[in-house]
Amino acid sequence: MAARVFTIDRLVAVATEMLEKVRVAPADADTCARRLVEGDARGQRAHGLSRLPAYVRRIEEGGLNPTANPHLISESPVTALVDGENGLGPVVMTYSTELASRKARQAGLAWIGVRGSNHPGAGGVYAQLLVDQNLIAIIGTVANVNQMAPWGGIERLLGPNPLSIGVPAGDEPDIVLDMATTTVSYGTVRRAIAAGRPLGMDWLMDSLGKPIVDPALADSGTLVPIGGHKGYGISMIIAALAGTLNGAAAGSDVVDHYQDLTTPTNTGHFLIVANPQMFRPLEDFLGEMDNKIHEIRASKPQDGVEAVRIPGEGSDSLRRSAEVSGIEMSEPALGELQALATHLKVSDLLDD
Amino acid sequence: MAARVFTIDRLVAVATEMLEKVRVAPADADTCARRLVEGDARGQRAHGLSRLPAYVRRIEEGGLNPTANPHLISESPVTALVDGENGLGPVVMTYSTELASRKARQAGLAWIGVRGSNHPGAGGVYAQLLVDQNLIAIIGTVANVNQMAPWGGIERLLGPNPLSIGVPAGDEPDIVLDMATTTVSYGTVRRAIAAGRPLGMDWLMDSLGKPIVDPALADSGTLVPIGGHKGYGISMIIAALAGTLNGAAAGSDVVDHYQDLTTPTNTGHFLIVANPQMFRPLEDFLGEMDNKIHEIRASKPQDGVEAVRIPGEGSDSLRRSAEVSGIEMSEPALGELQALATHLKVSDLLDD
Repeated sequence: MAARVFTIDRLVAVATEMLEKVRVAPADADTCARRLVEGDARGQRAHGLSRLPAYVRRIEEGGLNPTANPHLISESPVTALVDGENGLGPVVMTYSTELASRKARQAGLAWIGVRGSNHPGAGGVYAQLLVDQNLIAIIGTVANVNQMAPWGGIERLLGPNPLSIGVPAGDEPDIVLDMATTTVSYGTVRRAIAAGRPLGMDWLMDSLGKPIVDPALADSGTLVPIGGHKGYGISMIIAALAGTLNGAAAGSDVVDHYQDLTTPTNTGHFLIVANPQMFRPLEDFLGEMDNKIHEIRASKPQDGVEAVRIPGEGSDSLRRSAEVSGIEMSEPALGELQALATHLKVSDLLDD
Repeated sequence: MAARVFTIDRLVAVATEMLEKVRVAPADADTCARRLVEGDARGQRAHGLSRLPAYVRRIEEGGLNPTANPHLISESPVTALVDGENGLGPVVMTYSTELASRKARQAGLAWIGVRGSNHPGAGGVYAQLLVDQNLIAIIGTVANVNQMAPWGGIERLLGPNPLSIGVPAGDEPDIVLDMATTTVSYGTVRRAIAAGRPLGMDWLMDSLGKPIVDPALADSGTLVPIGGHKGYGISMIIAALAGTLNGAAAGSDVVDHYQDLTTPTNTGHFLIVANPQMFRPLEDFLGEMDNKIHEIRASKPQDGVEAVRIPGEGSDSLRRSAEVSGIEMSEPALGELQALATHLKVSDLLDD
């Protein structure tokens, strides 16, 4: 079957139907479907609908609670600790994002800690939700597999713990940074190997700290943190603030969600959300952000580079285009969804 | 004159006396001297007393107000905007750190924005002050010179905007990350050139984005952000949150404090400070941080590496040793201080 283009609504409807088949309540199924499809719309395919088969399988194996209702463990006007009850990550994160937004709009600032969550999809999706409300967002998550060693070490005790930061602008594109704390993900490594492309010198390292460039040795290495000891430090701090602070998994407690489908991952997040109006009038702030963003976008590019872009500009442009023109699903992606639809005995994407 | 060891108190006393000679009030002079000497004690020599001659010169040239009194522009229970009145960075940052600590202990959380500041010394010094009170700290500063280009660009529109993050532990060393958003600083580049060491492949790049390894071309390049577009994104966000949000300088507004000694730098900072007790009992949190830190410190190092260390462990160990055994000032560092003492006609370090 060839690649095909679908509307966002169609993809959301099909994913919602699949999730309902594994006992997810309609409203939660819709929320989860929307967040994943937003990942695809932003071009973050590795954190979009491609995750749905793993979510469904984890529910079927008993490792994720489809009927969870995230609830508050404790709360103050500016902080909260959320228990996701081992529910779908996108549902838990949506609940936490809405809570953070409410508090930040009321009190000017909020820090939400989360435990008992699962893989949430793309962090940038939640940063964008907050930025769309003219809020500043800093979001960290403990990744569900340890692929990084401490700097100078060789044991896999840290994940590529992702960080997403959003800062709203006015007419210019918002800044939405969405990054892992490793130079690349294993997904990038595997795609390079599949395509016969060479591995980057700063992607993987061996037990001497030397680069691994032989594809056959890729799995024996660890992912390299950005900036060496700096990215190691950032990853360790995200593990502390998204994990340990909230009673969520970190370090050797992390459950490899690829290998173990039954143990709750106890995934942790933190969300720090601020209202810029606490510091200067909103219009002033957005206007000055526009000036600074414009200055960078209008600056001279390197020879051979078309234009200087800001973090999130590409994703934002893809998202806008997807709203108008739909999302192209590649042949393999479509095949996987089709197989899942068949397995779950639901109407599939190819039905009219 | 040879390298010599001095007590912390002696270095603080001499630096205080020098600052008083350029009209800094005794209490502020003492604060500034202590913060800079703490930088030296932590081994962050580039942000210690080596900065004092530049601070004094800037006061003498009229670019920095020695009698500034940082004040609040606006405030809520959890946020504040501080105007540093173009005062000494360490004085403004100490004021802001104390304000953040007060709010975070009362309300659980604080975000302080600062404008009208100057170079504050080492960010890790302020993170450590907060961590010593069992608070979590995230501190960003707009650097006072643009040495980085936007990713894909060639214009110097960003600085190596430093980020300092502190997370307290119990018996294990606290995590205190203190990093620039570039792989190295120009200080590191210059020290390598002076010592005849080769430049790292990921230190500097030219207008094609290619590494610069020829020392003669070092000044024609730009510093490389950690993780390429990722470090560029982090630096741009620090410029937004420490600069633009607070009405402080960012992008092309940044005053190069090496070249221009008279224009106020309008340096900006942000401090996000949280009380971990909002999320779990302090003893639980510190105990679990100890477990996670121990797990990493006890993990197997790479062949040839003595032990795996955590961010700030080296600085903390140096600081403890400095409290007992004093701080060694190298011959050139001592020469500079001596020259400043002579210039200011104060008692010098060599007096008994």
